[in-house]
This record gives sequence, C-alpha cells and structure tokens, in this order.
Amino acid sequence: MQNFTATYTDLYQISMAQVYFQKGKHKHKAIFDYFFRKLPFEGGYAIFAGLETVLEILEDFQFSTSDLDYLKDQGLDPEFIEYLKDFKFQGTLTSSREGDIVFPTRPVLQVEGNMVEAQLVETLLLNILNFQTLIATKASRIRKSAGDAMLIDFGMRRAQGTGSYHASRAAFIGGFEATSNVAAGKDFNIPISGTMAHSFVQSYDDEVTAFRDFALSHPNTTVLLIDTYDTLKSGLHNAIKVGKEMESRGESLKGIRLDSGDLSYLAKKCRKALDEAGLDEVKIAASNQLDEYVIKSLKEQKGPIDVFGVGTNLVIGDPDAALDGVYKLAFANGKPRIKLSENLAKLTMPHKKQVYRIRNAKGELAGADTVTLREETEALHMNHPFDQSKSITFSNCSSEALLHPVMENGKRLYAPKTLIEIKTYSRKRLAEFTEEFQRFQNPHIYKIGLSDQLLEERDQLRNHYKNINS
Amino acid sequence: MQNFTATYTDLYQISMAQVYFQKGKHKHKAIFDYFFRKLPFEGGYAIFAGLETVLEILEDFQFSTSDLDYLKDQGLDPEFIEYLKDFKFQGTLTSSREGDIVFPTRPVLQVEGNMVEAQLVETLLLNILNFQTLIATKASRIRKSAGDAMLIDFGMRRAQGTGSYHASRAAFIGGFEATSNVAAGKDFNIPISGTMAHSFVQSYDDEVTAFRDFALSHPNTTVLLIDTYDTLKSGLHNAIKVGKEMESRGESLKGIRLDSGDLSYLAKKCRKALDEAGLDEVKIAASNQLDEYVIKSLKEQKGPIDVFGVGTNLVIGDPDAALDGVYKLAFANGKPRIKLSENLAKLTMPHKKQVYRIRNAKGELAGADTVTLREETEALHMNHPFDQSKSITFSNCSSEALLHPVMENGKRLYAPKTLIEIKTYSRKRLAEFTEEFQRFQNPHIYKIGLSDQLLEERDQLRNHYKNINS
Repeated sequence: MQNFTATYTDLYQISMAQVYFQKGKHKHKAIFDYFFRKLPFEGGYAIFAGLETVLEILEDFQFSTSDLDYLKDQGLDPEFIEYLKDFKFQGTLTSSREGDIVFPTRPVLQVEGNMVEAQLVETLLLNILNFQTLIATKASRIRKSAGDAMLIDFGMRRAQGTGSYHASRAAFIGGFEATSNVAAGKDFNIPISGTMAHSFVQSYDDEVTAFRDFALSHPNTTVLLIDTYDTLKSGLHNAIKVGKEMESRGESLKGIRLDSGDLSYLAKKCRKALDEAGLDEVKIAASNQLDEYVIKSLKEQKGPIDVFGVGTNLVIGDPDAALDGVYKLAFANGKPRIKLSENLAKLTMPHKKQVYRIRNAKGELAGADTVTLREETEALHMNHPFDQSKSITFSNCSSEALLHPVMENGKRLYAPKTLIEIKTYSRKRLAEFTEEFQRFQNPHIYKIGLSDQLLEERDQLRNHYKNINS
Repeated sequence: MQNFTATYTDLYQISMAQVYFQKGKHKHKAIFDYFFRKLPFEGGYAIFAGLETVLEILEDFQFSTSDLDYLKDQGLDPEFIEYLKDFKFQGTLTSSREGDIVFPTRPVLQVEGNMVEAQLVETLLLNILNFQTLIATKASRIRKSAGDAMLIDFGMRRAQGTGSYHASRAAFIGGFEATSNVAAGKDFNIPISGTMAHSFVQSYDDEVTAFRDFALSHPNTTVLLIDTYDTLKSGLHNAIKVGKEMESRGESLKGIRLDSGDLSYLAKKCRKALDEAGLDEVKIAASNQLDEYVIKSLKEQKGPIDVFGVGTNLVIGDPDAALDGVYKLAFANGKPRIKLSENLAKLTMPHKKQVYRIRNAKGELAGADTVTLREETEALHMNHPFDQSKSITFSNCSSEALLHPVMENGKRLYAPKTLIEIKTYSRKRLAEFTEEFQRFQNPHIYKIGLSDQLLEERDQLRNHYKNINS
C-alpha cells in the first residue's frame, strides 16, 4: 500500500550526508546500533517487530526523479544531487530475529555501510521499528490476559492515520488472530474479520429484520451486534430467533457481539439464554475500550467471552504510544565511537557487537543477555553496564548468539518470512520466559551486561573523549 | 506517498454493504454524521483537520482488480463483487471548513449518499479525521505556549509508523512553521528544516572540525548541535569559533541547538556568550521531550529560545493519542434514524443538519453553536442536548452557518486548498476565542445546543424506538 522512497527521512540526514559526500566520507565505513532505553508499558520485555518491513523497503530505497528535483530546489549541492541519482542502500544488517524477545540497552539491530547510506536510513528504521515493536508488545500483553480467547484487532478507526496498517501487522505478531483492517489483511495475509455496526441495525425499521437479512447474506460468518436498542430485552431475543432460523436451514449463527454495558454480566446472561435455546455453539464476542487490564478482569469474573475485539488501546499502544528507540554511532572513520552523556544510562557502546542469551545446562534461560564485541564467541562473564562493582559469572551455561546477518550489501540473505512464521517463533521465544517476567506489575528485571572486552573499550573511549573535549 | 483503494476500510463495512446491495438498498439514500464526544487534552476546543486529505482520496475511492480478487477469495457474493467493479464514491459532503474550531456533540461533517457508499467510507473518514484533528489541536496548544518562537516538527522517528506523514500536515495547520519530515514537506509544501545529529559530531575526531565542515557545506542554513560532549565547555566555544569564521567569509551562522540539560539555564548562558562574541543574530534552538507545558515553563523562565523542535509529544498527540470521533447514521431508508443508548450523552441526532455559530451585534462570539435541521435558517434559541430544563435565547445576535457543501456526487466543489490557506484561516478562527477557552486548565466550556425542531424530532424518534424495541 505504501510507496517509500529515500525522502522518507528527516532532512538532517540528507544535510549531514551532503557533508560526508563532499568530504569523501561516503567511502568510509560506519556502524550504527538500533536499541531502546526503556521497556514499554512498565512491562518486563518487548517483542521486536518491523524487521521484514524494513528489509523490504531497504531493498529498494532510492530517490525518485521528483525527489531529486525537490532536493535541488532546497538548495542542496548539485554534485551531491548527482551522487544521489545512483544512491541505493547497499549496507549490511545484523539483527535480532523478528518476533524475538528484546530488552533495553542492548543492540537490537546493527547497520554497517558507508557513512551516507548508514545515516540516511536512520529515520526509516526508527519510524518502523519503534512503532511495530511497541504494538507487538502491547498485543502480547493482551494475548497474555486473554488466555485462549480469540483476539481481533478493531483499531483502524482510531489509529494514528495510516499507522493502522503496520499496527495490524504488529498486532498479529504479538498474538492477535485477525484484523478488521482489509488493506492490512490483504497485504500481510492476516485473516480478516468483522461483524456489523449499529448503523446496520438502525438502517432497518426493526432489529429482527436487520439480523435476518445479514444472516441470509452471510450464512457462515454471521455475528450479530445485539446492543443497538436493548441488549437483553431486544437484541439477545432477536439473535436467538435468527439463530434458530439459521439452524433450521442447516446453517449456524457464528456469534453475537456485545459493545456496551457490563460485559461480564451481559455475557453470562447471553450464554445462559443461548445454551437454553440449544445454541451452545454460538460464540460471544465483546468489544468497547478493551485492553489487557479490562480483559484480565473479565476473565477473573469468568465472563464467558470467546472473542475479544480490541481497538484504540491496542493500535495506539496506550498509554505509552511511543517506544524510545534510538540509532547511535558505534564506529566511523576507522575508529570506534561513543556518545557521552551526563546521564550515565545514555552512554552508548562502540564497535561491531554481538548479544548472547545465557542458558543453563538444561537449556533454560538464565535471565541475562550479554553484549560483547562481535568476535567474542561466548559471554559467560558479564559486567553491569553502569555499576563497576557488579559482575556475574555464569557457570555451566551456554551462550546463544542473538544477532544474525539478515542483509548483506543491500541484498536480503533469506526469503521474506511470513507473518505466521514470525508469530510462531515469537510465541515460542516468549514461552521461555517465566511468569515473573510477564506479569504486569513490577515484573522481574532481565539483566543486561557487558563483556570485559567491550566494557574496557567503552571506558577507554569515554576517558579519551572526556579528555580531548574538556 | 500513499495509495488508497477502497479496501482501506474495516471488513464489516463491506459485509454490511453486501447485504444492502442484495436487498436493493444500494439505491436508498443514507446520511451519516461525523462528530466526536470529548475534547482532546482536557482542552477547550479542537481544530478540525484532514478534510482535504479525505476529499482527495474520495475522488478516486475504488477497488482495484487485486482488491476484488481478494474479496472474492474471502467468500463474498460474486454478484456483489461485480457491482463493486464499478463502485466509485459519488456521495455529497457538507463539512466544517478545515482548520475551523470545532466542539463535541455537534456534527463536524455530514455524508449523504447511497447506503453502500456512505457506509464504505466510514473507516477512511474516521481514520484520517480523528488523527489529523488530534494533532492539529495539539500543535495549536504548543503554538499558544511558544508565543512568536518558531516551531519545527521533529517527530518522525517516534511517530506511529507512517502516521508521521499526516501528523506533519496537521501540525502545520495547527501552528508549526516547518517539519523535518522530507516526504511530508515535499508532498504538502511544508518548509523543511533540520540541523545535525550527535552522530555527525561523533563521526569526527574533534567537534570543531565537524562544525567547520558542516558550515562550509551549508553556508545559509547551518545550525550547530552543541551538546555532544559538553555544551558550555566545548560545544558553545566551538560554535562561536565557527560562527566567527563564517562571519569573516561574509556568511552567518544561523543557529545553535540545545538537546539536553537545563534548556533555560543553558540558553541564557549561550545567548550571553554569543552576544558578547558579536553573534547577536545567531538563533538558539531547543529540543528534547518538549510539549506545551515544558515550553510554557521555558517561556516563564525567560529562556532566550528562538526555535523549538518538538517531536514525540506532538506527533503522537500525547497524552491522549486518539480522538474519539464517530460516524453515526442520521437518515436511511426514507426515515430519520438515531442510536439509542443507556448513556444519554451517546444519543445521536437524526436528519440532515446545519450548525450555526452565534455572534453578538458586534460580531463577537456568543460562546455557543446551535445544531438545527438543515432547512432552518437561524438558530437564536437553543436547548441543552440532554437537560430539558435548560435553554438559551440569544437576543440581538446573528447565526453563521458552519457546514458548507464541499463535495457533490463525488466531485469536489472547489480547487484544493493549500495548507497555508488552511493554517491562516485556522489562526483567524482561533483568535476569535478568548483566553478562557484557550487556557490549559479547566477551560471555559463552549455551549452546544439543539434547535426546538431538532430536539423535537430527536425525542419523538427516541420514544418511537424505545416503544417498538421493548
């Protein structure tokens, strides 16, 4: 649905690239890290999403003729514009697998390329990865609450404009089964689902005729919205009538939907009446301002709800609405680089890196990822990133490398993964984390540490820059 | 940048449309209202935005061949698919002007068309109008705080994916002067602006060479980011050095940017040092987690900041992140329609309507909009929508009609308005509202009332539906 060209970026990326070009640095190698600093939703983990979207865009990341005309009008150097004519992203990406469980501070993805291309893609990466990671994480929390109930994304109408498209993609990765968003369903092969609106019922002179017409039109997929007039006195009664009519035709009513009122109370009343009418197979769907907390409460009240339609709170990633992912320089101009900060937690890490997940002898998670230099092959001793007095040694453990080559010289290294593959992988990975990491309140903190070599490199550089710039 | 086809919708719109088609209702007329129920940000007003985007999409709102193949695979009726082949939106829109000040409960826009087309466009309208209205309103609040300082949208990296595109558009309408978002700048003719990133400075061995190279490359637009190492000890000093070098070449440094630390304190120190160096013309720009409250505080501290770069909090519309706009049926199948609700505030209004803004003899706002039937030509008596005991008569006042025809039978009625026209109009309209409506805390409540005729029609219908469905 989207056409992305290389102007999908902040102007300053292009302004900086012009300087790099003029100074011959477009031939120098640069390495950038993508990572975030704070877990969303005060939760214990995040689900990395958006990688395939990024790879697809990067394979064809160029300036169009009209882009170049526009940039020329903005006063950019004509020789640089000439260079941009042939610009094509030819960098190399090493990344966490899409759907994997990721944590703050440690690199999620690394970009290697020449200074120009590595800088130009910053905005695209942040824009796509921050948002999809936010939404996949939100979806996974809702999945956690919902147990084995079906989850459908209903968020398009309140989404942040066209952000809805990738929100639906990320929601599927995080644990939703379907979406109401037809464009996203079509392009990403997500099952699409929907019921009816109040306006449909209102457009008829009476509710039962509205239900009947809908059932005749959709013999296999009818879900009747029963709260337009009065849920229990009118809607439920008419739904049962039409459900029995469908039964007599050898069809079956798929479900009813509650969109207002006390969902637990109403669902219980509806379940009882449906069962008494012999409509045991009819599912109950609920919607209306749901999120992981409301669904958790409904489950605790044993509201017999089979399907939850979740809208706004899912697709905007309420209440955070943004992930604070950043893209920081780790190597340039032949040298490792860091960003200093008065705030120690904002210090970055130099060099090409690897991240290892530590497992015990049984293969279970040890509760820590260690960041190392890329060439290190294990990571069984790690140091606290900011507190020199703390370190851990993992005995009788193994190290699983988490960053994998996904693009080399601008070419993808494997066929695009399907969403269902990503979702399945994500579920498997999340299942390794105990309840303590997944709970909503004060979750257990997963540890991130640095290898001795990386720590030493970082602290040397830090002292170097402190000295030369003060 | 975006390609919208008619699958930019929720599935249930298509499911309902199939029933309408099969029952011959695609020839029946329907009227829907777009409105919202709650002002964002606990503020006193909202700025309507997104209309031109909607009109542009609606003029070419059709299903592609691949859309139709996809829908066929979803099990839709082949005759209905055949009908959709020739589907084109041919409805009529009556709307508030884009940029106008709008309030809850009253219609912002009305759609008239056949049942199918009027239903199918619901999701598109909600998706585009809810988000742009949210962001234009947020931008206008930030504009209010910023006084005559320049405002630049820096939000793309933390925006909700491609939502950034229309966020930048709406921010301009609400009062921003420029954006870092090149794609939006190009397509919407918004001035683009940007400085440099920390990575630029880090990619050099020393800060002053980084500044110098940038200045040589951008003699007219150089804004130096001075907090990479140490703002006052290093960055400011090097910026002054390079500023003086530019001066000696007959150029001038445009500005410096602060992106961390105590912005008010640092800005005062920088202003003093720049002035002492004879660099009075160099502007000070600030960024880092700004919003209307932080900027208000900086202004109160008299921080000498000329330019604010606002990112995340602007483009996600923090803290609300969504506007609760809805699209409700007002007329169908030859009859006026309403949606009942146990919550009186959720009751909708039937019929084709007009909204009048009341002004006193001097032309000043009287603080109220009256909703009437479309054919009523004035609105100087209004009733509280939900409290029968309250009504107001406006003596010696006039009524300004707020809803205007903008599209007829699928064709726009005027040439597309430029963003600057919309922004200028919006500023003029907002200026009519006194400070009491614009303040952030407990703003004055603008009144919305119903004419006698509309109230009577609504209450009759309400009683009618209550009786037949209970």
